[in-house]
Amino acid sequence: MLGNFVYANPTKLYFGDEPKNNLIEAISGFGKKVLLTYGGGSIKRNGIYDDVTAALTEAGKEVVELSGVMPNPTVEKVEEGRRIARENNVDIILAVGGGSTIDYAKAVSVSAWYDGDAWERFWLHHEDPKPGERIIPVGAVLTMAGTGSEMNGGSVITNHATKLKIGKVFGEEVMPKFAILNPKYTFSLPHRQMVAGIFDTMSHILEQYLSGDDDSTSDYLAEGLMRSVISSSRVAVKDPENYEARSNLMWSATWALNTLIGEGKTQDWMVHMIGQAIGAYTDATHGMTLSGISVAYYRYIMRYGTTRFARFAEVVWGIDSKGKTEAQLAAEGIDALEAWIKEIGAASEITSLGVTEDMLEGIARASFILKGGYKKLTREEIVEILKASL
Amino acid sequence: MLGNFVYANPTKLYFGDEPKNNLIEAISGFGKKVLLTYGGGSIKRNGIYDDVTAALTEAGKEVVELSGVMPNPTVEKVEEGRRIARENNVDIILAVGGGSTIDYAKAVSVSAWYDGDAWERFWLHHEDPKPGERIIPVGAVLTMAGTGSEMNGGSVITNHATKLKIGKVFGEEVMPKFAILNPKYTFSLPHRQMVAGIFDTMSHILEQYLSGDDDSTSDYLAEGLMRSVISSSRVAVKDPENYEARSNLMWSATWALNTLIGEGKTQDWMVHMIGQAIGAYTDATHGMTLSGISVAYYRYIMRYGTTRFARFAEVVWGIDSKGKTEAQLAAEGIDALEAWIKEIGAASEITSLGVTEDMLEGIARASFILKGGYKKLTREEIVEILKASL
Repeated sequence: MLGNFVYANPTKLYFGDEPKNNLIEAISGFGKKVLLTYGGGSIKRNGIYDDVTAALTEAGKEVVELSGVMPNPTVEKVEEGRRIARENNVDIILAVGGGSTIDYAKAVSVSAWYDGDAWERFWLHHEDPKPGERIIPVGAVLTMAGTGSEMNGGSVITNHATKLKIGKVFGEEVMPKFAILNPKYTFSLPHRQMVAGIFDTMSHILEQYLSGDDDSTSDYLAEGLMRSVISSSRVAVKDPENYEARSNLMWSATWALNTLIGEGKTQDWMVHMIGQAIGAYTDATHGMTLSGISVAYYRYIMRYGTTRFARFAEVVWGIDSKGKTEAQLAAEGIDALEAWIKEIGAASEITSLGVTEDMLEGIARASFILKGGYKKLTREEIVEILKASL
Repeated sequence: MLGNFVYANPTKLYFGDEPKNNLIEAISGFGKKVLLTYGGGSIKRNGIYDDVTAALTEAGKEVVELSGVMPNPTVEKVEEGRRIARENNVDIILAVGGGSTIDYAKAVSVSAWYDGDAWERFWLHHEDPKPGERIIPVGAVLTMAGTGSEMNGGSVITNHATKLKIGKVFGEEVMPKFAILNPKYTFSLPHRQMVAGIFDTMSHILEQYLSGDDDSTSDYLAEGLMRSVISSSRVAVKDPENYEARSNLMWSATWALNTLIGEGKTQDWMVHMIGQAIGAYTDATHGMTLSGISVAYYRYIMRYGTTRFARFAEVVWGIDSKGKTEAQLAAEGIDALEAWIKEIGAASEITSLGVTEDMLEGIARASFILKGGYKKLTREEIVEILKASL
């Protein structure tokens, strides 16, 4: 914990299998008019929509619906949300879905009452952390674990016209006021979506953990979370309705990206930068873009941070260090990561995601280059890593 | 994560070595009149008092002082605080100190504007979680790591007349609004106090971890925290001004008892119950009462939860499991805990704390018996554990 920081996370989490009562309690103090936003309608097939609307009715709320939020929410969709939120003067936005829907709700939240170009102010100039003057509170009912959007200020928005997918991180004012976390709501998720969420969680932890060489409590917490994710993922891929495993995966996802395990330390985030660029080119599932390039990225980068990668192998994967050099241990840790990616059925390459060789230069150019990892990459190195991921 | 729960922790933590600016920022929104409370005056010798009063002056605050908070704050001292807080109609209570001072501030916070018998309502009937109707906000400047009081609703108060020391846990309304965590503020702490704080932290983790047999993310986080505490304690006892080690110890202490690692699982807490009873009899340092009985307690209890104790030995202490039964592993884990207690210089028995054989029956009677551990103890078993700790 060598760095100075402020930790503030006011999101109230209602965890467990009594979602209806939790939602009624959680939303009670937030006015009458609710903008209910969700994705493609799967929540109407699995009963979640019925639970939510029953709770809202019982809580005496007036509901305006805004559906059709896509997996990578677009600037155009944000414009639609701004207009509807303003026209109806809503008191709260309730996002029912996964990270895309919650990210989208935050985007509408900060931009609805802002008069200028929201994309330009909040995403293109994403170094400025300030939200708009008037923010509409957001609540969330989580239906997919992975992004951590339910307890952070992150909001990733895609601009297809410019082929840019940008994640903005707002402060505590924009974090959801509450989130309903019911592990059973993730049971009906398609297998591939569950696996993508698991790797998204793992990637969040890895990208904070695999950076820096100081001794920090944050890294010990990260190791604990990774061990829990690995253990529960092995149960969940075989038995998706195992409540214990799905609840651990849901809780781990939340804590993997609510700032806790990154406090006081440097962080990497290049896998997300490259993954988001792949997403902007292919519209592939976010978690799969991360797993598709992680092995090649870490295999390239580990020589610059061997000690931490060796610790990763020993502590997280339980690899016996006896008689091995740090470099050997580091390599075995990434082998273990690769084997696990294949075991749970995440993408272990990017060709199947629709990436072709002619896209690589463009993806490399669209990747924001950060310097928090063990090596600041050049464009050429990104192209090499992408090639090794094909 | 099999249990249902609500996680809400609004305390804003300002971590690092810029405490003055942090305090000015943190306290700005809380009115003009500050009740500044602290202990025996050590903060006047080490410069912390000067830092704090300079910040309060710069922030334009009017200060009422209330000093002399003792290590185990008493009901009589709470009465004094209630009177002063009311007479001066203070807007916020700023506790500068360790857990005792912050616990005390919370006690004054909830009881100042309550007209009845505060001890009876809030501590003696400590099952009722409701605070009073009017709560004075609390802020904290932490000078000792260990209790976790800076980010939770706990408040332990001692009634010498009835030889009772009771820990009440209030909800989020009573948690400090902010806490200033500057690792350097702990540098001047006497060695014995530092060690007591380290074991208090470890005990908080152990008492949540050594209970239950389900697979829970909470326990993986607990393991990470324990590994960090053990690692940093070994540095800090040799080099108390090692910023990295002291910062990890401070951060771990906060997260060991802010509800996170206990969510969704059963918890034990008998070591605290017996330790508090010892404290009521001897006024011994809290952390030392815990280390003094832990080894005997766990050695007795481990047969009822062997699998978890074996995991504790392997994951937390890195003991090689090859060729060993779970019972052997479990025993070796407690041996390792005992060796570490001696290594860092915590009390490994209770005779040196002033406990004599004639007190044991009384201490056992004064210990609240909880049922969250692997075995619900009888009074006779508590006496046996106390005897084994002499």
